[in-house]
Amino acid sequence: MDAGTDKPAASGETGIDPRYLHDWSGLERGTPRVLHRPRSTEEVAAIVAACDRDGSKITVQGGLTGLAGGAVPADGDVVINLERMNAIEHVDSLEGIMQVQAGATLQQVQLAAEAAGWYFPVDLGARGSCQVGGNASTNAGGIRVIRYGTMRDAVLGLEVVLADGSVVTSLTRLVKNSAGLDPRFLFIGSEGTLGIITRLTLRLQPKPGDTVTAFAALPSLDGVTSLLRDLRRALGPSLSAFEFMSTRFVDLSLRLTGVARPLETAAPWYVLLDATGAPGADVTPALHQALEHAMADGLVADCAVAANGAQGQRFWRVREGIPEILTELKPLINFDVGLPWVETRGFIERAEATLTARFPEATHLFFGHLGDNNIHVVSGPHRPVDFHAVDEIVYGELHGRRATISAEHGIGFIKKPFLHVTRSPEEIALLRRLKTALDLNATLNPGRVFD
Amino acid sequence: MDAGTDKPAASGETGIDPRYLHDWSGLERGTPRVLHRPRSTEEVAAIVAACDRDGSKITVQGGLTGLAGGAVPADGDVVINLERMNAIEHVDSLEGIMQVQAGATLQQVQLAAEAAGWYFPVDLGARGSCQVGGNASTNAGGIRVIRYGTMRDAVLGLEVVLADGSVVTSLTRLVKNSAGLDPRFLFIGSEGTLGIITRLTLRLQPKPGDTVTAFAALPSLDGVTSLLRDLRRALGPSLSAFEFMSTRFVDLSLRLTGVARPLETAAPWYVLLDATGAPGADVTPALHQALEHAMADGLVADCAVAANGAQGQRFWRVREGIPEILTELKPLINFDVGLPWVETRGFIERAEATLTARFPEATHLFFGHLGDNNIHVVSGPHRPVDFHAVDEIVYGELHGRRATISAEHGIGFIKKPFLHVTRSPEEIALLRRLKTALDLNATLNPGRVFD
Repeated sequence: MDAGTDKPAASGETGIDPRYLHDWSGLERGTPRVLHRPRSTEEVAAIVAACDRDGSKITVQGGLTGLAGGAVPADGDVVINLERMNAIEHVDSLEGIMQVQAGATLQQVQLAAEAAGWYFPVDLGARGSCQVGGNASTNAGGIRVIRYGTMRDAVLGLEVVLADGSVVTSLTRLVKNSAGLDPRFLFIGSEGTLGIITRLTLRLQPKPGDTVTAFAALPSLDGVTSLLRDLRRALGPSLSAFEFMSTRFVDLSLRLTGVARPLETAAPWYVLLDATGAPGADVTPALHQALEHAMADGLVADCAVAANGAQGQRFWRVREGIPEILTELKPLINFDVGLPWVETRGFIERAEATLTARFPEATHLFFGHLGDNNIHVVSGPHRPVDFHAVDEIVYGELHGRRATISAEHGIGFIKKPFLHVTRSPEEIALLRRLKTALDLNATLNPGRVFD
Repeated sequence: MDAGTDKPAASGETGIDPRYLHDWSGLERGTPRVLHRPRSTEEVAAIVAACDRDGSKITVQGGLTGLAGGAVPADGDVVINLERMNAIEHVDSLEGIMQVQAGATLQQVQLAAEAAGWYFPVDLGARGSCQVGGNASTNAGGIRVIRYGTMRDAVLGLEVVLADGSVVTSLTRLVKNSAGLDPRFLFIGSEGTLGIITRLTLRLQPKPGDTVTAFAALPSLDGVTSLLRDLRRALGPSLSAFEFMSTRFVDLSLRLTGVARPLETAAPWYVLLDATGAPGADVTPALHQALEHAMADGLVADCAVAANGAQGQRFWRVREGIPEILTELKPLINFDVGLPWVETRGFIERAEATLTARFPEATHLFFGHLGDNNIHVVSGPHRPVDFHAVDEIVYGELHGRRATISAEHGIGFIKKPFLHVTRSPEEIALLRRLKTALDLNATLNPGRVFD
């Protein structure tokens, strides 16, 4: 039975399908009391108001693809899953703006944009399952952040249910609005702790032109950041992806996926990059010229520019060998840290040396969206008893580097013990004041991000 | 005498230069008790803590170029002017990131970026006087928003002094950070009501390539939005400015500035636009092609593409005739409303008809950065006694159009009576909860934005 407006707390499901007890993090917490799958903002508001009255704790769920455990319920929780609120309510094809319910999947949004002649640029592997409300609440990004930014840049307005069941509708659809603080930024990235996002207005982008992919071998990690600087300057917004990978990452991915090696030249670091122009514009000459400069400067030892889309996709298959790698190395730990470019080499060299010394049998891989400051570290296999020691090594190397423990996946439960690495006591105190102001009884997603 | 850390309240200036009593809005309020011009965050914190103890009210000042009266002090206020905190503290020329004190002028930031081989894209006419802290607190934008966004997109991190004198240093310098709610968004756009911004980390951009300017005559207002859609799709991020102007605006500007008419073809609407590629890329062919399509489609009646930079500057001089126009029409009212594109024609036609019927002797001009949803209305001359009636007509036409009363200048004091046009009671209640949570005694910039 569905939640109704009249008796919401009584109308949820109590024999709960186990798929609502987990996300992709694998974290296990407990058995919730009831599952609601409302169909409207009014239903969400009624459920939250009832919880506010009776003191129940709420876990909010989107597509359950999170990697930080934020959507995993505890014993006795009231679960609100937004999967039935998946309507594409309106597309303005003149201006390129869409209004949707929060439970629409990212893929639904992408396809609706495409059908209207536009493009929605946030994109992740979980696109078929993850929901835009969850994407907004975790400020998701993906592989096109270097060109288009994260969800924070894609969301123009929000409707939110607050912890007392009141509804704030701020479905602004303006690029520029200076009428006081913009409420949307309270809810983007706060992981459902300040309110439940129920509807969104999204900014679409013009469809991009053709993409040219290149694969480059680099002799040093400093060369990777120098190449990124030079390509940003030469290509401007045409630089639409820049992924770096360690040689261990590339070797393992090639072995597991069976893909042909894009370059014969051996090097400690590889970069995969895309250049994308406006429709009808060919960015290939500019890309060739920039890469020739980089080779002349010694930043790049060798490189290949894909002759066509199919070859470009084969280059990308190396980076997308991640599922095979994660299967091969498990039990593993997957980090999504972020650092200033000047700290990249120091962090990687020290973290790799310490991890290798302490866990010589495990494989430690470094790769990521460097243009967004994002470095992934995958380390495994490890015994679960060693997980904490691996965390301590990687997060310990972030201290003093103005880094973040999460550039992408969020804090949830899993990274909460390390929030202090990224946020000062004063910042956490400020976040706590906001939580108290908006949710005094800690009804919404209690225990996420900070205690 | 300057504020010191030990006895800040006693060490400010009491014989206050009249220039600290006004901003560019012309609003007059009263005589402050003391003026502080601190040199450091610690001095700001000490002054605020003293005010928190003795119940003084604080007016925060940047470059005093605001148009909404937000920096104008009242009788008995403690004024904190940030002009002495103008250091460019650090430029990372590898990654294109700058750390500055809040009192640095916009022009200082632009020049420091230029000197490091980068570009700071926020730009306004007041660049020589306005300060980046003020730019952030009002979420300033300017003429390049269509390509680069507003201050919200340029600020990566902030340091803020809260109402109790505590300091929150969140000088993040990462493009992507998903470690909980990002505190910077509480302070960008909230006009100094939640905290005083003392330092910022700013994101620089690669230097753009050459700009090509065009001037087009359009037979209809619907054609203006259709042209904008088509140019966005054809040029993508190369479309770097799109300004529309009514024929009255163009005629008056040409008469007052003496500039040669860019196009002989008479039309009710004109568009001035820039296309800017990456360095070394020539966007002229793509712009020509897009404009030819628009002429074939009947959207554009005639157009001229500037043959060189000097001609492009002459085209821009038409749009930049604003100071002469403002002098000619005063006493006038200058609006910076924002609307969805689909509402543009309805709003302008109705507002113009009503203004003309009610004030047939006055001139009513419509123009603006349409790509950012921003429409300026300038109406004058008016007797001061009629100002409120003009406000009522223009803001009244925004009702039901999902519009904003301020796309650019902020609310301050002057637009406060009309905030309800843009923000629902629920949104204002939410903003009030934040104000109460962070500044219970209303010490910081009291009376701005909302009561």
